[in-house]
Amino acid sequence: MSFLEQSFSVKFEYKIYFAKSLFDISNPTLANFFKESQTSVVRKIFFVLDQGVADAHPGLVSSIQAYFDQYQEIQLIQEIMVIPGGEASKNDITLFDRLVEAVDRFGIDRHSYIAAIGGGAVLDLVGYAAAVSHRGIKHIRIPTTVLSQNDSGIGVKNGINYKGKKNFLGTFSPPAAVFNDDQFLLTLADRDWRSGISEAVKVALIKDPAFFSWIEEHATQLVARDLDTMNYLIARCAALHLNHIASADPFEMGSARPLDFGHWSAHKLEQLSNFNVLHGEAVAMGIALDSAYSFMTGLLSEEKLLRILHVLLHLSFDISNPLIQISDPESPILHGLKEFQEHLGGKLTITLLTDLGTGKEVHEMDHQMLIQASHYVSDFTSKAAVLPL
Amino acid sequence: MSFLEQSFSVKFEYKIYFAKSLFDISNPTLANFFKESQTSVVRKIFFVLDQGVADAHPGLVSSIQAYFDQYQEIQLIQEIMVIPGGEASKNDITLFDRLVEAVDRFGIDRHSYIAAIGGGAVLDLVGYAAAVSHRGIKHIRIPTTVLSQNDSGIGVKNGINYKGKKNFLGTFSPPAAVFNDDQFLLTLADRDWRSGISEAVKVALIKDPAFFSWIEEHATQLVARDLDTMNYLIARCAALHLNHIASADPFEMGSARPLDFGHWSAHKLEQLSNFNVLHGEAVAMGIALDSAYSFMTGLLSEEKLLRILHVLLHLSFDISNPLIQISDPESPILHGLKEFQEHLGGKLTITLLTDLGTGKEVHEMDHQMLIQASHYVSDFTSKAAVLPL
Ligand SMILES: NC(=O)c1ccc[n+]([C@@H]2O[C@H](COP(=O)([O-])OP(=O)(O)OC[C@H]3O[C@@H](n4cnc5c(N)ncnc54)[C@H](O)[C@@H]3O)[C@@H](O)[C@H]2O)c1
Ligand SMILES: NC(=O)c1ccc[n+]([C@@H]2O[C@H](COP(=O)([O-])OP(=O)(O)OC[C@H]3O[C@@H](n4cnc5c(N)ncnc54)[C@H](O)[C@@H]3O)[C@@H](O)[C@H]2O)c1
Ligand SMILES: [Zn+2]
Ligand SMILES: [Zn+2]
Repeated sequence: MSFLEQSFSVKFEYKIYFAKSLFDISNPTLANFFKESQTSVVRKIFFVLDQGVADAHPGLVSSIQAYFDQYQEIQLIQEIMVIPGGEASKNDITLFDRLVEAVDRFGIDRHSYIAAIGGGAVLDLVGYAAAVSHRGIKHIRIPTTVLSQNDSGIGVKNGINYKGKKNFLGTFSPPAAVFNDDQFLLTLADRDWRSGISEAVKVALIKDPAFFSWIEEHATQLVARDLDTMNYLIARCAALHLNHIASADPFEMGSARPLDFGHWSAHKLEQLSNFNVLHGEAVAMGIALDSAYSFMTGLLSEEKLLRILHVLLHLSFDISNPLIQISDPESPILHGLKEFQEHLGGKLTITLLTDLGTGKEVHEMDHQMLIQASHYVSDFTSKAAVLPL
Repeated sequence: MSFLEQSFSVKFEYKIYFAKSLFDISNPTLANFFKESQTSVVRKIFFVLDQGVADAHPGLVSSIQAYFDQYQEIQLIQEIMVIPGGEASKNDITLFDRLVEAVDRFGIDRHSYIAAIGGGAVLDLVGYAAAVSHRGIKHIRIPTTVLSQNDSGIGVKNGINYKGKKNFLGTFSPPAAVFNDDQFLLTLADRDWRSGISEAVKVALIKDPAFFSWIEEHATQLVARDLDTMNYLIARCAALHLNHIASADPFEMGSARPLDFGHWSAHKLEQLSNFNVLHGEAVAMGIALDSAYSFMTGLLSEEKLLRILHVLLHLSFDISNPLIQISDPESPILHGLKEFQEHLGGKLTITLLTDLGTGKEVHEMDHQMLIQASHYVSDFTSKAAVLPL
């Protein structure tokens, strides 16, 4: 037996631009991006739009057309495809087929781009279609929700659901570029505005104590939808996520872990709620539970736990939703632990907190202590209801 | 406008093992591979088998089962899926669905493996299903044809056809490992045995003059199906391909070029023949044409051209098939130039030869000179028919 060895590295680079009114003729951000990457070949760009965004921004399609009429760096495919937003888009395989069919019909090759404008779900679907068409068409993401601007839209994953299994098909495929335009955030529903904030709380709690304090100090403005405050939160949260991806194991080939503090129960909770509870809302509940558990095991002081629970309530998160409550070892949410373990391939790894800004990995969770943690959170919430925040 | 910058490298490593009778209990190659990569998590392996291989090796399924009964390093999924071989497998989307459905049903996670045993077509299909299931399940390739052992099965690409477009869906996803077992080659049809040899001629001509001379000296043994000679050819050809992939642009993100000397006409020819002409057979014709063209443009000496044409005839390739002949500027094969240019995204790049072992890129081809090159090849073939080789 003999063998040959193959070994190489592939470098991936992309920028996340922060812009206002991306398709305003006076804004050259997008045009400059194409100018800088100019080559001798003919390049096309095909836009796919989240229906929710299209409805909230009725002038968007014609702004895009006018923009590329003005800037001729790349050839705009005049037909702009509008597809349903939200999880529905990831459940409908015919949408994937329609995207691939459009790539074929419009002759989008590996030098050309598919741009997606929308929430995390639409970005995940279009990113997947782009990743597998011609073994990878360049993909531009224009995320329009808080969650997608600070987390899901800036990373390297995409995916669609298959037979009801979340993200069953997908790839790790870095985008060509991401453009975060804050003007999209203005039309978000209140729940979508708020829910993405929990990912910032999450990453602050395991990585950045100063950012956690900043969130505490700015919770009021965040809830009041102050756009500059939200812009800072998104930029800081995005930077922390990007660093984590780059420094760990970007394509999750080894046992390096994504930033999933608070996520084992959140995933289960979304499912138990039939996805009526939003991802970010579930993550807030998961953070509360795992922070309380960190206190129960003696890792985290009660004073710090209380600061966490306070800020989550201040941000209007419902952290004692009946679905997250664990009253006995048969509580459905506990199945989430087993499913999370399976998802990790057999070995459970859970992030807990030892401080505000410091995570610690453990490999088991005690059911009794989880019950106590769950009680602690609901007791706190009922007391907080009669006290000022 | 401000921006964040993401930048990281991902390292890919895998081995190509050369083995005899991989599933013989006395051969520990495969078992050692799993032993060395042992982790604490439960790992499964699911086998998919090319029908052509299963038919030619009736004991294979039970050998696989016996092998993993003996070596318990990994848990074999007892059900082994047999799927049609050849291009048909890449045209049938329901096979892709069946593979993904099996991943789900058998609980194959990102720590587990899908192994494919078969020709390049089955490897391409299974590799694609593996690459997108759970964002990438580990994939083991066991190529069973000359072409797949020396070229298609050892690289980083996979793919399926979509609406009649070759490899329309696919990814760049390096395998976890490749196992080349020469015993499979014994049952190949003569055409499949021979056709893969042209990829070795191709890579020798642009990279390795000594290897070209070796092929000239061993053409008789190769055609006579001498296994040791074929093993050397495969190992050398594989090594050259691996080096090229690693040293250039493995995921073809820039304008770096794959090893496609002789391929612009070959692709068109396969299509014109309704895929009755095999890829390797078409490549042999394409090599003859582009070598003659290199002579016409003054890049290559006639003596060297004659050595190339001789070796191709000696290897029994039909280099003056009517489909490759160019009699006027309307000859259908010439459309292949335009399609190749589109495939490259607008800028034509063709490899020609300046010597046996040295390629040179040019950006246009003259139709009149192509007609002369085509005539030269057919004249040579008719003369050769009455002369000894
Ligand atoms: N790829 C990743 O790494 C990753 C990470 C986390 C989450 N995700 C995915 O992200 C998805 C959730 O994304 P999301 O939270 O952004 O929500 P979403 O995509 O589900 O969108 C929520 C709703 O908001 C609407 N909408 C979007 N932008 C709008 C705007 N500017 N104005 C008005 N309405 C707007 C949409 O049409 C939709 O109805 C999930 O599918 C999840 O799996 C992916
Ligand atoms: N991924 C890549 O980088 C890449 C590169 C070049 C070609 N390809 C693809 O490879 C495919 C061609 O592959 P191929 O030439 O290996 O042929 P193939 O996969 O089409 O197989 C040819 C025939 O041989 C049979 N067969 C396979 N192994 C056998 C064995 N040991 N004994 C008896 N019969 C056997 C098959 O059942 C099939 O009928 C094409 O689809 C082509 O696109 C891929
Ligand atoms: Zn999350
Ligand atoms: Zn080839």
